[in-house]
Amino acid sequence: MPTVYVLNGPNLNLLGQRQPEFYGSTTLADIERDCRGLAADLGLDIAFHQSNHEAVLIDLIHEARQKAQAIVINPAAFTHTSVAILDALNAFDGPVIEVHISNVHKRENFRHHSYVSLRAEGVIAGCGFHGYLLALRHVARLIS
Amino acid sequence: MPTVYVLNGPNLNLLGQRQPEFYGSTTLADIERDCRGLAADLGLDIAFHQSNHEAVLIDLIHEARQKAQAIVINPAAFTHTSVAILDALNAFDGPVIEVHISNVHKRENFRHHSYVSLRAEGVIAGCGFHGYLLALRHVARLIS
Amino acid sequence: MPTVYVLNGPNLNLLGQRQPEFYGSTTLADIERDCRGLAADLGLDIAFHQSNHEAVLIDLIHEARQKAQAIVINPAAFTHTSVAILDALNAFDGPVIEVHISNVHKRENFRHHSYVSLRAEGVIAGCGFHGYLLALRHVARLIS
Amino acid sequence: MPTVYVLNGPNLNLLGQRQPEFYGSTTLADIERDCRGLAADLGLDIAFHQSNHEAVLIDLIHEARQKAQAIVINPAAFTHTSVAILDALNAFDGPVIEVHISNVHKRENFRHHSYVSLRAEGVIAGCGFHGYLLALRHVARLIS
Amino acid sequence: MPTVYVLNGPNLNLLGQRQPEFYGSTTLADIERDCRGLAADLGLDIAFHQSNHEAVLIDLIHEARQKAQAIVINPAAFTHTSVAILDALNAFDGPVIEVHISNVHKRENFRHHSYVSLRAEGVIAGCGFHGYLLALRHVARLIS
Amino acid sequence: MPTVYVLNGPNLNLLGQRQPEFYGSTTLADIERDCRGLAADLGLDIAFHQSNHEAVLIDLIHEARQKAQAIVINPAAFTHTSVAILDALNAFDGPVIEVHISNVHKRENFRHHSYVSLRAEGVIAGCGFHGYLLALRHVARLIS
Amino acid sequence: MPTVYVLNGPNLNLLGQRQPEFYGSTTLADIERDCRGLAADLGLDIAFHQSNHEAVLIDLIHEARQKAQAIVINPAAFTHTSVAILDALNAFDGPVIEVHISNVHKRENFRHHSYVSLRAEGVIAGCGFHGYLLALRHVARLIS
Amino acid sequence: MPTVYVLNGPNLNLLGQRQPEFYGSTTLADIERDCRGLAADLGLDIAFHQSNHEAVLIDLIHEARQKAQAIVINPAAFTHTSVAILDALNAFDGPVIEVHISNVHKRENFRHHSYVSLRAEGVIAGCGFHGYLLALRHVARLIS
Amino acid sequence: MPTVYVLNGPNLNLLGQRQPEFYGSTTLADIERDCRGLAADLGLDIAFHQSNHEAVLIDLIHEARQKAQAIVINPAAFTHTSVAILDALNAFDGPVIEVHISNVHKRENFRHHSYVSLRAEGVIAGCGFHGYLLALRHVARLIS
Amino acid sequence: MPTVYVLNGPNLNLLGQRQPEFYGSTTLADIERDCRGLAADLGLDIAFHQSNHEAVLIDLIHEARQKAQAIVINPAAFTHTSVAILDALNAFDGPVIEVHISNVHKRENFRHHSYVSLRAEGVIAGCGFHGYLLALRHVARLIS
Amino acid sequence: MPTVYVLNGPNLNLLGQRQPEFYGSTTLADIERDCRGLAADLGLDIAFHQSNHEAVLIDLIHEARQKAQAIVINPAAFTHTSVAILDALNAFDGPVIEVHISNVHKRENFRHHSYVSLRAEGVIAGCGFHGYLLALRHVARLIS
Amino acid sequence: MPTVYVLNGPNLNLLGQRQPEFYGSTTLADIERDCRGLAADLGLDIAFHQSNHEAVLIDLIHEARQKAQAIVINPAAFTHTSVAILDALNAFDGPVIEVHISNVHKRENFRHHSYVSLRAEGVIAGCGFHGYLLALRHVARLIS
Repeated sequence: MPTVYVLNGPNLNLLGQRQPEFYGSTTLADIERDCRGLAADLGLDIAFHQSNHEAVLIDLIHEARQKAQAIVINPAAFTHTSVAILDALNAFDGPVIEVHISNVHKRENFRHHSYVSLRAEGVIAGCGFHGYLLALRHVARLIS
Repeated sequence: MPTVYVLNGPNLNLLGQRQPEFYGSTTLADIERDCRGLAADLGLDIAFHQSNHEAVLIDLIHEARQKAQAIVINPAAFTHTSVAILDALNAFDGPVIEVHISNVHKRENFRHHSYVSLRAEGVIAGCGFHGYLLALRHVARLIS
Repeated sequence: MPTVYVLNGPNLNLLGQRQPEFYGSTTLADIERDCRGLAADLGLDIAFHQSNHEAVLIDLIHEARQKAQAIVINPAAFTHTSVAILDALNAFDGPVIEVHISNVHKRENFRHHSYVSLRAEGVIAGCGFHGYLLALRHVARLIS
Repeated sequence: MPTVYVLNGPNLNLLGQRQPEFYGSTTLADIERDCRGLAADLGLDIAFHQSNHEAVLIDLIHEARQKAQAIVINPAAFTHTSVAILDALNAFDGPVIEVHISNVHKRENFRHHSYVSLRAEGVIAGCGFHGYLLALRHVARLIS
Repeated sequence: MPTVYVLNGPNLNLLGQRQPEFYGSTTLADIERDCRGLAADLGLDIAFHQSNHEAVLIDLIHEARQKAQAIVINPAAFTHTSVAILDALNAFDGPVIEVHISNVHKRENFRHHSYVSLRAEGVIAGCGFHGYLLALRHVARLIS
Repeated sequence: MPTVYVLNGPNLNLLGQRQPEFYGSTTLADIERDCRGLAADLGLDIAFHQSNHEAVLIDLIHEARQKAQAIVINPAAFTHTSVAILDALNAFDGPVIEVHISNVHKRENFRHHSYVSLRAEGVIAGCGFHGYLLALRHVARLIS
Repeated sequence: MPTVYVLNGPNLNLLGQRQPEFYGSTTLADIERDCRGLAADLGLDIAFHQSNHEAVLIDLIHEARQKAQAIVINPAAFTHTSVAILDALNAFDGPVIEVHISNVHKRENFRHHSYVSLRAEGVIAGCGFHGYLLALRHVARLIS
Repeated sequence: MPTVYVLNGPNLNLLGQRQPEFYGSTTLADIERDCRGLAADLGLDIAFHQSNHEAVLIDLIHEARQKAQAIVINPAAFTHTSVAILDALNAFDGPVIEVHISNVHKRENFRHHSYVSLRAEGVIAGCGFHGYLLALRHVARLIS
Repeated sequence: MPTVYVLNGPNLNLLGQRQPEFYGSTTLADIERDCRGLAADLGLDIAFHQSNHEAVLIDLIHEARQKAQAIVINPAAFTHTSVAILDALNAFDGPVIEVHISNVHKRENFRHHSYVSLRAEGVIAGCGFHGYLLALRHVARLIS
Repeated sequence: MPTVYVLNGPNLNLLGQRQPEFYGSTTLADIERDCRGLAADLGLDIAFHQSNHEAVLIDLIHEARQKAQAIVINPAAFTHTSVAILDALNAFDGPVIEVHISNVHKRENFRHHSYVSLRAEGVIAGCGFHGYLLALRHVARLIS
Repeated sequence: MPTVYVLNGPNLNLLGQRQPEFYGSTTLADIERDCRGLAADLGLDIAFHQSNHEAVLIDLIHEARQKAQAIVINPAAFTHTSVAILDALNAFDGPVIEVHISNVHKRENFRHHSYVSLRAEGVIAGCGFHGYLLALRHVARLIS
Repeated sequence: MPTVYVLNGPNLNLLGQRQPEFYGSTTLADIERDCRGLAADLGLDIAFHQSNHEAVLIDLIHEARQKAQAIVINPAAFTHTSVAILDALNAFDGPVIEVHISNVHKRENFRHHSYVSLRAEGVIAGCGFHGYLLALRHVARLIS
């Protein structure tokens, strides 16, 4: 069964507790549960991680080179600042789907630029936590 | 049954014939057929249009104010140049999902800015024609 | 009796229905009626048009070269994007007054630049629909 | 009878003597006389001032907080440089109409930005000294 | 006999009537006649069109995909604003020659950028209406 | 007893009356009283001034060269526009502390740049009128 | 007794050893000691931390959501690069005071922009290590 | 005997006391004396003024319209910020020579732009106070 | 018989040997031969030069002031960097046609700006070495 | 024997596995072995580290303050984003040599700026892994 | 007797023949004659050169290191493009005075930046050929 | 034996005499001698040139196409301004190593951009004249 790494960047551990006007009240555990449910239906195995450490995310992407067929990543604040994550993703061969819960284009200017988009096959923004599920559906289609 | 306007901007009538490295060989008729198929499953009614005329798209958005609960729009080249379409969408009350077949962030600089993103709830880019289906799924969730 | 073309750009047909915080509840028909009333007092004949088609507006400006002594134009979204309308106005010899219902300088940055202002004699912004009447008064003074 | 402060910025005391290609031969005294004539018709009382001192204009705006229902201001060169006048106007509650005799958008680039427009309800440019009268008409409508 | 589409953008129908300092007194009909004369000598068939509608030009470019071996285009104001025409030209396989009657590099800054130049094989500017004939000569050489 | 000049720029005479969301309801007289109270405790003598005239502030800074050991200055709008005040402060040898009642970095872009910060030893922003007292405490430490 | 988290960013562990022209010879331990002394006087409890890890700082800010009423933060180099710390602070409800030992506005251009200032209530720069004490005084006033 | 207004901007009253690395130890009175000496030789009458008030300088320029044949101006900090002085100079018909004691091009970036240079016939920078004498020599040649 | 100077900038002596994807295998001698052939037909005399020295090109342009009626110039790399060649061309009274073998607008950004275009009557780019012949034809028309 | 810290930034642990067009097939272990070989010849002791953690690199630079006479650093992606590493290097007194395996100036724009270059004595880019050896040779010369 | 090198950049050999609206009808020989006349009065020896070759000017500046006490230079077009001349002047120890016949600040934007001004002690622009004489006077004062 | 052209740009003939804070006291002859010494060890033949003429350097690069296997170039000031040297190097097939004696990234902004880096395989900056030797070592490795 193909494996998908679902990676979450800084502060997403607070999901459901902070800035509900952007992110809603769903927690990351809720998202993980829904992702696992849909993945089972789609015949995908999921590794689900969150870290506030850029380097931990880089290590997970390196690990995915051996263990995963695709990556779904919500890089959160690192979207806009991390060339290192971009470089790590450039070393991954399978498809990468970038997810943002809010529509970053409606927020501050510095959130309009994404290093990760320079690498990702697909970008899904503003669809709330449903974006994760859409990303998994798209991964399933790409690697099936 | 709720109605969704699926609107397509300039040159998309050529889909399947031009620049396959960006857009693949699927035609717009194929996309419409797949959209109708999924929409039926989701309990949605679809109005599917393409125009090279900015003003025809504006008129369709105006029409959608009365006839539709949501809009899925691939504005193509107008994404980057049409304040008029943005203004028309600002006059529509339901959710708007912006779709791009290719990942515009990997193309020329002038394709990185979207006027439509300033209005859209969700933006789905780089998922190929599957992006339309993802958009419909998200619309179904939003208006159900 | 001198003739004034009063031209209205995209989405202004929705006036009175959309974004009342910027435009109020007055409709374009109301504005036309008030313009006709004042024009009669001022001894002016009025041709009043709205179009979402940039090219229709261009054709009207070309037509005005033969039929009108002045143009009052609210180019709406085309203000910021249409070099073609600027070029058409450059081919018109009489005075041109640009009208904006809202004060565009208080809105998004991309609304601060006007191609039409490079040609217009006068610019009236933020005076609501009353701006049309002020523009007519100014035209009357210029061409009398 | 409501009072309107009509304020004029630096160098406008030279009106009628300098750069007639932009400003015509009318003097500021002519403008004041015409303003008073129209104001009487409109049922408005007018306080008419000119100063080359930014601070004198600021003091007049402060004074207007107690004594006036509206301000018509031609900030001249201060339009482009004075944050202090903007701040003073921000402390005034009634409507503010900004007037420029010439169409500043056709002049040097540094004249295209206006701090005052960030506060003004309405902006009237390029209508010559008639712009003052149009501004008074608009004020009359707003505060009646 | 190979066919060349000669396409003309907005306001060029006024040629000979407007801004003679930039465009001279020749009309578009004169240009068409001269083009047809030279084309006959060069063994080329010509389809000659002008439109103020961006979408009509796009449709003509689409049509040219089947019917023409080359395109000569004077996009006029759309040069600087139309990504949609660029995209249409990207879907055309034969050579594209861009013509400007005046030297756009000597005019306003916003006329210095051309979307069409990103696609055109050749660009001929500032040679007056003779530029059309030079373009036809070059097309003849390229497709012979 | 060392003397500190506490200087206040344009519109600060309105403090307590305008834009309470930024500045609160405290008046400049309240601030002066609190400053004098704390200064007495700290063994400082205070000269407290406000002016809407840039030149009056410059003269006061010149005067401070003879009469004061330190300057606390809230330049208000002149922060962003006055090279002349910067030059005057450059001629003063003692410490300069810049105070802003609101956090200017959260306001309009043009308020993010400060000429005075190029000279000031310390900058205190967003601490409300308490910022004056913090500035005095810092001055006391520096000149003791 | 209310608790204040005093957080210090990268390289501040070297304080007193590096670049004395900017930071003086005081060590971070000295600062902590002085902060604890003043905090006792002000009736505040202090948690004092330094880390070179952006993620450790983020975790401490998350922790502060439960355990602290205010944050004083000297983000050092992260001031200019960390959107992730900004996002973490956005999830904290109490007041945030940003401290810089040197006046960053007098240093290199890339030190003039602060992501943290977009969130902080107050910003104190250039007051040396005394800035920490001023920040604590302001916190005491805000949360008393 | 022709009259030359020699005008000096803000802070120049401190000449000889401040920033000797830029300006030397000569006072403004020394400069005035040397100017008067040379003017006598050149057959020129001199009116020599300094003000920290932008408006006083504007009034002097207005006055010069009647009383002077030329202006020599060292606008100091107003060089870079005053559109109002530029406008006043635009209303003066005789030659204007701009003088800067230091070479402004070697100082901070914001000192590289001069509004006054947009009007001045000649600009003399970096020649120390001797620049005033060179300016007078040039004026003498121009108006003789 | 009128004379045309055909001038070629740096590295064009390598034509036919380098970067054939941009320039083809034709040598500069081939171009000269073709130019002479067409010139004979057109009744023009040709002086054909290449230099890697900016100053030699300037001297040739100066010489052309006496000896030539027109200049055809391919400034190559100097297009983008030489104000001195622009100034030399400004001192030439006859028509100047600028030729680029490749379409410079499709190459690196720094090749999009041309100083020479600020002077040239016509610009022909991307027509390969045929561009020289087109330029000669246009010259023939202009000076006949 | 003097010690050199050789530090490697994020993703360099993948060397030899990723993007061979930029980095070749040599692994970091190969580089370390070659560095140790050359260092022995040059009489240098080497500490060789790689980390994906910015903070680990900062700690190593701090450690080098006591233990090393020079630093050779390939900051990889942190080159472009880490002010914190720049600040750490600013606290190190010996020579710093920056190495990039590929020529970063030929890659994306965001790789053209280096914070580390603001501190490094020498920069060696595009010499492949040989660049490390060149850096060691230069260090040997500097500290001998 | 001290020697001054008076150096003239490209196209100045045409002085008196080209663009009289900027440069007048005086020739370079006239200027040299007047310079020699004044130099004799001032006790200066003059070496007067013009070249269209950047390298010849550099060689002359190098030569001046041994033979001259000061340089007066009108770099003409090289003002804006030559870092090499700036570097040569940086290797000269005596005073450098930069002269421009016209006021470059009133011409095209690309003429507003001067590399030479980064080195020159004094800059004299817009004083016509008299500027050379003013420069000599200033040199005489500096090196006496 | 393979040949390497070692080329030196403008002002480098002054090496050892000017700006020792950037370049040290070593002369170009010293560098040539050291280069020849190392080249002999490495089995390389060297052609060593310096010129202040851009065109002479271009001619040498053209010559190297026949006679050399590699180029080491210190373009000095031409680094930042010469597209013509870039174009010449683009016509050379072997490796190119760019050398700068000082670390250009620590100097003025206009020295941060290098046209030559767009072509060079390797770039070595800030290693003093030792950089030439490092470059030769790297060349030896590349062409062996």
